[in-house]
Amino acid sequence: MHALELTKPDGRRMTLYARAPLDAGLQAPSPFPDPLTGGAHLRWHVLRGEWVTYAAHRQGRTFLPPPEYNPLAPTTDPANPTEVPAGAWDIAVFENRFPSLGGVIAPPPELIVPTAPAEGRCEVVVFTQDREASLGSLPLSHIALLFEVLGDRTRRLAAEGSIHYVLPFENRGAEVGVTLHHPHGQLYAYPVVPPVPARMQQVAAEHFAAHGRGVLEQHIEAERREGTRMLYEGPHAVAFVPVCARYPYEVWVAPIRPVEGFASLDDAVRADLARALKTVLLKFDALWQRPLPYLMAWYQAPTDGQPHPESHLHAQIWPPYRTRDRLKYLAGTELAAGFFAMDALPEEKARELQQVEVHVA
Amino acid sequence: MHALELTKPDGRRMTLYARAPLDAGLQAPSPFPDPLTGGAHLRWHVLRGEWVTYAAHRQGRTFLPPPEYNPLAPTTDPANPTEVPAGAWDIAVFENRFPSLGGVIAPPPELIVPTAPAEGRCEVVVFTQDREASLGSLPLSHIALLFEVLGDRTRRLAAEGSIHYVLPFENRGAEVGVTLHHPHGQLYAYPVVPPVPARMQQVAAEHFAAHGRGVLEQHIEAERREGTRMLYEGPHAVAFVPVCARYPYEVWVAPIRPVEGFASLDDAVRADLARALKTVLLKFDALWQRPLPYLMAWYQAPTDGQPHPESHLHAQIWPPYRTRDRLKYLAGTELAAGFFAMDALPEEKARELQQVEVHVA
Repeated sequence: MHALELTKPDGRRMTLYARAPLDAGLQAPSPFPDPLTGGAHLRWHVLRGEWVTYAAHRQGRTFLPPPEYNPLAPTTDPANPTEVPAGAWDIAVFENRFPSLGGVIAPPPELIVPTAPAEGRCEVVVFTQDREASLGSLPLSHIALLFEVLGDRTRRLAAEGSIHYVLPFENRGAEVGVTLHHPHGQLYAYPVVPPVPARMQQVAAEHFAAHGRGVLEQHIEAERREGTRMLYEGPHAVAFVPVCARYPYEVWVAPIRPVEGFASLDDAVRADLARALKTVLLKFDALWQRPLPYLMAWYQAPTDGQPHPESHLHAQIWPPYRTRDRLKYLAGTELAAGFFAMDALPEEKARELQQVEVHVA
Repeated sequence: MHALELTKPDGRRMTLYARAPLDAGLQAPSPFPDPLTGGAHLRWHVLRGEWVTYAAHRQGRTFLPPPEYNPLAPTTDPANPTEVPAGAWDIAVFENRFPSLGGVIAPPPELIVPTAPAEGRCEVVVFTQDREASLGSLPLSHIALLFEVLGDRTRRLAAEGSIHYVLPFENRGAEVGVTLHHPHGQLYAYPVVPPVPARMQQVAAEHFAAHGRGVLEQHIEAERREGTRMLYEGPHAVAFVPVCARYPYEVWVAPIRPVEGFASLDDAVRADLARALKTVLLKFDALWQRPLPYLMAWYQAPTDGQPHPESHLHAQIWPPYRTRDRLKYLAGTELAAGFFAMDALPEEKARELQQVEVHVA
């Protein structure tokens, strides 16, 4: 993998990645001529005991731009720059112009709750130059390259020291609020371990202390033994509808053996993980013969400088549909109590997805 | 307050409430002639360390019924019964026909994760017979009666012993997935303290142990002292946009002094709490001259038989809009990390709501 580090005219950092060597003359464009302004800050939520970030400058950000303007497509007219240059690159990563974390770090206001500067980083990950592609339609080698890129990003962000957790995710589809349909994901680098990964780390650490093995590693063994919800079983990676799914079409994708994060994957595991993910995403889009929206999050070990033998890299993918034409809304019990209610059995939904045949080349 | 306990033909329990004595001849109808079937079960989410409930029989439940059928309106044609009878009552509460918790309790399946019967209760709370009303449009005395009803429900459910937490909530508007537009709320009675209230109890208990006073009580003092985000200040209750809001138009409504739950409110506090809530709901609907959707949850003390001096009854109300025509979607950072990102400052949104003048009679 080759990487070229650039700086945009407005000061944001960008890295281009490719399998072939990159042209060192490539330049990073920006649709925004003026330098970065703004600056987010954190406020402590006194009842929930967690941080919330406030970036008031985000209000003016791009929303459902006209279809002719795609800021994630390569720049063709230098008078109308996009976020990425024309040229030979495979994957581009750049800092979000309207970050919830990072960017211009300003002193936080003094308030009646604790506040802090919103340190961290919000990056956009452009999966491909092809606006008509989707993550699942990309070649296996390209998906594996993306995993390598995510490992590189995690390693670089962790090296900044103030970053305690790196979460790569993809929001896909208008149903989950996505306004730019060019295939892309995001990467949030947090100055703390956020509440959900923190809880999962706690559960995993307690399990590891009690059993000497990882909770997800043992769960994958049990899912494979039972077999009824499996969608993909390769030599190094699996995909399945978990027995405890919180969304009807929820799927987990993971290496079979525990790996702390993308930066620790070897070539064979990375390639099989790409095949597991591609299998799932192709099944999703073939299920109803239309692109299935989803939220996909990749959980890794915290980047807090500690060893995390309890951590096990995996994706949780949450499509928002209950059936072909019914959305699952998160309401009272899910959002206010954190107690999820499902009206479908994971076994039934797994069967639906198992019956979708796809060709993974 | 008067209450009449009834049983529906399909076995579900119903209670009618009124300020005037109730006609003991009232009968409870049901649109469902056949007895209750189904039965939900819980599965343990191994990575998050929480229960998820599965009620596969819910798939067939009512969804966007034709506008002429309103199951929450009083029955006028005995051949086409609704969920509530005609007659002189103010508020009706009955068991959900398709409960996520409670109903027919069946032994849970044996799976590769711990399972349990889905004990608990899901109740529907019909706020009024008037389908054209909204909670905020009801007279103050009717809202106060609703609070008294919620106290009675909490007391009765707690007495069942297996209930550890009672959460009253209202989902309002198609944007949050509501299919029945007759004014109503719900009440989930959980066999455990669910994750979000559990975390809030932990935070509150730690604060109480350290300071000898409640975290919300002290926070309300600070909000009142600063004053910039207050929407209502009465002798016994307040409403304000919290400094640490996670949704742009988030509002908290609470008694000024700590009260464990609805069952502990005295008449004066209950009346002022009704005025605080009505003020907020009228402001919401006047803001853009249209009904504002929201999720409103009322947090109370757990019903686990322990004293909870750290608990402080309050509502958190979360409208899903960022601006007049932009929804706030919960995506990667909110759902996968539990780290909320706001692009509006609570101070600005509070000012918008402060400037909306309403007449609370």
